[in-house]
Amino acid sequence: MPASPPHDPTLLAGGTGGPRALRPLVDTVFTALTDGAAARCGPLPGGGPDGVARRVADHGTPVLPEQGHGAHDALRELVYVLAEGAADPADPHCAAHLHCPPLAVATAADLAASALNPSMDSWDQAPAASALEERVAAGIGALVHPSGRDPDALVTTGGTESNLIGVLLAREVHGRRLRLICGADAHHSAHRAAWLLGLDTPLVLPTPRGVLDPTTVDEALAGLDALECPSPRPPTPAVVFATAGTTDTGAIDPLGALADVVAAHRPTRAVTLHVDAAYGGPLLFSDRHRTRLAGVERADTVTLDLHKLGWQPVAAGLLTVPDRTALAPLAHRAEYLNADDDTEAGLPDLLGRSLRTTRRPDILKIAVTLRALGRRGLGELVDAVCAAAHQLADLIEAEPLLRLRARPGISTVLFRPQNATDAQVAAVRRGLLHEGHAVLGRARAVDPATGHPALWLKVTLLNPHTQESDLHGLLKLVLDQHQHQHRHQRQERDPRR
Amino acid sequence: MPASPPHDPTLLAGGTGGPRALRPLVDTVFTALTDGAAARCGPLPGGGPDGVARRVADHGTPVLPEQGHGAHDALRELVYVLAEGAADPADPHCAAHLHCPPLAVATAADLAASALNPSMDSWDQAPAASALEERVAAGIGALVHPSGRDPDALVTTGGTESNLIGVLLAREVHGRRLRLICGADAHHSAHRAAWLLGLDTPLVLPTPRGVLDPTTVDEALAGLDALECPSPRPPTPAVVFATAGTTDTGAIDPLGALADVVAAHRPTRAVTLHVDAAYGGPLLFSDRHRTRLAGVERADTVTLDLHKLGWQPVAAGLLTVPDRTALAPLAHRAEYLNADDDTEAGLPDLLGRSLRTTRRPDILKIAVTLRALGRRGLGELVDAVCAAAHQLADLIEAEPLLRLRARPGISTVLFRPQNATDAQVAAVRRGLLHEGHAVLGRARAVDPATGHPALWLKVTLLNPHTQESDLHGLLKLVLDQHQHQHRHQRQERDPRR
Repeated sequence: MPASPPHDPTLLAGGTGGPRALRPLVDTVFTALTDGAAARCGPLPGGGPDGVARRVADHGTPVLPEQGHGAHDALRELVYVLAEGAADPADPHCAAHLHCPPLAVATAADLAASALNPSMDSWDQAPAASALEERVAAGIGALVHPSGRDPDALVTTGGTESNLIGVLLAREVHGRRLRLICGADAHHSAHRAAWLLGLDTPLVLPTPRGVLDPTTVDEALAGLDALECPSPRPPTPAVVFATAGTTDTGAIDPLGALADVVAAHRPTRAVTLHVDAAYGGPLLFSDRHRTRLAGVERADTVTLDLHKLGWQPVAAGLLTVPDRTALAPLAHRAEYLNADDDTEAGLPDLLGRSLRTTRRPDILKIAVTLRALGRRGLGELVDAVCAAAHQLADLIEAEPLLRLRARPGISTVLFRPQNATDAQVAAVRRGLLHEGHAVLGRARAVDPATGHPALWLKVTLLNPHTQESDLHGLLKLVLDQHQHQHRHQRQERDPRR
Repeated sequence: MPASPPHDPTLLAGGTGGPRALRPLVDTVFTALTDGAAARCGPLPGGGPDGVARRVADHGTPVLPEQGHGAHDALRELVYVLAEGAADPADPHCAAHLHCPPLAVATAADLAASALNPSMDSWDQAPAASALEERVAAGIGALVHPSGRDPDALVTTGGTESNLIGVLLAREVHGRRLRLICGADAHHSAHRAAWLLGLDTPLVLPTPRGVLDPTTVDEALAGLDALECPSPRPPTPAVVFATAGTTDTGAIDPLGALADVVAAHRPTRAVTLHVDAAYGGPLLFSDRHRTRLAGVERADTVTLDLHKLGWQPVAAGLLTVPDRTALAPLAHRAEYLNADDDTEAGLPDLLGRSLRTTRRPDILKIAVTLRALGRRGLGELVDAVCAAAHQLADLIEAEPLLRLRARPGISTVLFRPQNATDAQVAAVRRGLLHEGHAVLGRARAVDPATGHPALWLKVTLLNPHTQESDLHGLLKLVLDQHQHQHRHQRQERDPRR
């Protein structure tokens, strides 16, 4: 790499001089990103955790030198090693998790957020950013709750925080006796929210078909007080935690029917409906798939996560409500940020819009993406990954050595080599990871053929540019890895072969 | 502005092609940042909240168009209006809050984090990023706890989350009867943490001199059980929440003496010490100021915030511990992220390093900054802002129309026009904000002259490039604004003037 001209490492990113200071550094970043990706030459680095840790140590020692090494050196070394050692979701063979490849336009917008560094806890740290958030949050709230009285959304760090706030709002309305009711397939953050908030452990309902059964929820609500003796008065309040797009299979709970059940219990019990649509929420952008979320608009709180099916760099979480007055329990005072006389004089009070204080304007990249692509453009990306999942399912069904678990929920496909054990399935995944050939996920889910849980390879397709040839290649990698391990095991059993 | 060539808005930021897709978009961002800053021509936009909201609506409507407007249009419009409507901490007259101007080198590094989009919840989403975090977190832990057994740090969204986790760790060790004890000047997030975690409201001790008095804390611990009747057995557990750098004045609690008090109570009561060093922590980089934090190394948990005195774009929060085994209560299982057999096979388990699941690698910009500037380079920036605060205090003391409250704690200076009422002080601040001339903070703190609380103008100096002429200019703005309002008020009382 050619040496870059010396750069005063104390230059700032803001002001009229910021872009001048940033430009040569960004060039160094681009070179390091390009070189790192080329050196990796695959979806992730080979060699497993030890190899990666060694290279990070080589490039990043010491962590805190006495004398600085300069801006270009630091960016060159550390961005290079991060890129060379990335699991890059822009590679179609990196398809394990709800871990999306971000759009270039969203990433470029995020650079502006870093450079200007607005902090969303008071107007005088983020005048335009807070005005933008107000407008865009209302727009997203209206997308989810089109007939809501005054829809709004909070910007969060992701589904985990959105779920936490959803449960917190229910706790603040209904009190600390609140019981969370969720299905066995709900995200682990439901449990973590209850733990953090000091609530009883959630009541977990079985989901033999992968989704919450409204009848089971109805019975659970009806029987909730029998869990305590004597039966409490007033009845135990509850929050029903539904899911639109489970992490393991992309399954969508029957939201309309669940909303009916909750509504039916409301005359006799304080109960709210939270929908975790961290994965499935963006189906609302799609003309083809929107109806699959019918009923979501009736939820009291809805989790969205545009760093999943929204192609944003992390973080881009949201929590929508049909009426912003529902957010009142988050109101909070700090003289230095929202003194009464300042609020009366017209300075907006932002502190009740988050559990954080200092807060990055993640709304900017979201706003830029919505405007750049429009609803249709985003809907087409959603359609593309859903179509790719069906294409992959077709290929698996046509391949006698593989077995598809079920047609895909959203863009998630579970499958396994025929006649493999669970240990072999896990080993195939780890083998591909260690060799740097593919990043696949894993999920334990009922095998429809046996009725018993089994371990599956999981492909979560979030890259809208994935081609059929990529999918072919991915299946070939799995088959080769499985065969290779199988042969290796036989050799271990019979060393003469 | 010249038209940019058309750009496919669905291009991705990652892979070898990412930098090619990003470069023209980043050029558009730089142009919009430069033009926006030039149009603002000051530390913040004039016209107050209404004017800013109007311009954001003009540039950002509709929020979600049916058809996309394209990447360049979206970036041009929205980044421009964000820059034009920013309160830019790179301007020396933007000095209200612990809201720092980020370094260009940290901002450039953050772009790489967005483009690669690693997610820190599992190794197979962030191989090198997780290895880097492990090394850098240990290094920062060792800076705070040099003789700790196995120092470590968690990366958080900021001081509020760090304080939450500090209290949470105490709750998990000592149980839900935990009582939080803090001073009247502790950050509001102490109260929010207790609320969120379902604990009793904190016991707030008076701090007439702006810092926690060890004797008062000693008495509070000794008297804790008398608050309940009959006295509980075992005694009520407690977490003492100390502060190294209050938000209002930058005051530092006597950490060594507080650690002594906590140690003295440990034989008879479960009690831990948390230090909120969100502001003051980076004094540790400075040869001149390091000793002011003596005792911090003995805390059980310490909050740092490198998006304050560390010149990082938000977010760059940390929570340090002297021994990583203290983090065990955060351990958490999710089959798809850290299955037992994967962990046994050597895949690192990252889920217990945060309350979040998906998580951006904020460690990258921190690591790049530590390497680029070194300990001495960062220490010099800390020294520079502390020196600027003393310079400002000198200027105020030399100005008969202004009154200094006290010599600065870290880099915070409180002062007010002579003989002004609290309402006038608040109005001066709002007047400067509305006209776009300066962003000053406010703080209610005891007036040493009267012994009663009063409202002060607050200047928090975080821009290391601030010159003496900037400070002169800032004071002139305050005096002019005060005089202008004073004259206006007199005219209102006597319209003939």
